[in-house]
Amino acid sequence: MKIVLASNSPRRRELLSGLGLDFEVRTLQGLDESYPDGLQMEEIPQYISRKKAAAYTLEPDELLITADTIVWLDGEVLGKPADEAEAKEMLRKLSGKTHQVVTGVTLSYIGQLDNLTIGQFNCEIVKSSNCQIKHHSFSSVSQVTFAQLSEAEIDHYVTHYRPFDKAGSYGIQEWIGYIGVTSIEGSYFNVMGLPVQRLYSEMKKLNII
Amino acid sequence: MKIVLASNSPRRRELLSGLGLDFEVRTLQGLDESYPDGLQMEEIPQYISRKKAAAYTLEPDELLITADTIVWLDGEVLGKPADEAEAKEMLRKLSGKTHQVVTGVTLSYIGQLDNLTIGQFNCEIVKSSNCQIKHHSFSSVSQVTFAQLSEAEIDHYVTHYRPFDKAGSYGIQEWIGYIGVTSIEGSYFNVMGLPVQRLYSEMKKLNII
Repeated sequence: MKIVLASNSPRRRELLSGLGLDFEVRTLQGLDESYPDGLQMEEIPQYISRKKAAAYTLEPDELLITADTIVWLDGEVLGKPADEAEAKEMLRKLSGKTHQVVTGVTLSYIGQLDNLTIGQFNCEIVKSSNCQIKHHSFSSVSQVTFAQLSEAEIDHYVTHYRPFDKAGSYGIQEWIGYIGVTSIEGSYFNVMGLPVQRLYSEMKKLNII
Repeated sequence: MKIVLASNSPRRRELLSGLGLDFEVRTLQGLDESYPDGLQMEEIPQYISRKKAAAYTLEPDELLITADTIVWLDGEVLGKPADEAEAKEMLRKLSGKTHQVVTGVTLSYIGQLDNLTIGQFNCEIVKSSNCQIKHHSFSSVSQVTFAQLSEAEIDHYVTHYRPFDKAGSYGIQEWIGYIGVTSIEGSYFNVMGLPVQRLYSEMKKLNII
């Protein structure tokens, strides 16, 4: 099958490349990333990854990968910061605490994989107008613990790295991750934006690779 | 102070660069990395990092960083593999299990930091023949869990990545880490070879940065 990564994120492209698979990138602009109230932590990015998938048209030999990552702190989603002040405020909130980074992933394909056992996963069959599209979704959660960050460290990071495209206002692979993250529990690559080992394992279960 | 990294490892150089500090690299070949029987897990790389430090001559304004990383599985140290067969054997042992990666780090400097409170750490003052050298050592432990690896995956990795310079026969930042590591607990950079956040925090405590 032809693997199609539906993501504008250069980090996700890099992470998927790390699996050694060939793939093509296909993106749409202006996708609606809203979600209903009342969703639990893991359900939010999974829901958004499903919604992103629904915006794409698929060919019979294609596997579409859509994903969304959120930062979750004390029951609240930290999104992408609008400006410097908001970025600094988020980093002050994350300082000295453990938060969750959750990536939801949806694998979508047209029905020729019908006879596979998808088994115990969060799977569902959706009838579209002209064909049967299957969506296979999962979420991966990583715990990330930050040391106490000083105002000087927060200022330095926001000024030099401008993390406005990053949920929670930080990239773990950037300077702030080196000086500030004391430990993680779960997948490091998931914190970067794609739980590649889980993705590889789910694709193996679906006999895609 | 002038920071001197005493390591042949390009990964350690990259990791230290990530902290945004200026440093110079100084290496010696053929250092003795043996250690006495009976040392506990964390003590082994810390002991070796101290032994490496003892081989260097320091100037009064220099801070020397030496480090050693071991892979510890079920009470046994997995070193660098001698050949393909040994590399594959180590990966078979790691497959489907959790192991520990331990990095020991020693910061060495000449006595002008005398009046600092080194406090609760594993510190000690060593009298050398002509000056007072201080050594400040610590270890960082990360848990790493591998998925079940197939023989095909192990073969592919060893053939293409030739992990003969790596303790435990793998690099977490390489393909095997992408497809095989389900989760870690602790510092990801420590698994790569240097616990940079801890190092940064220890250097701050010593007022070096």
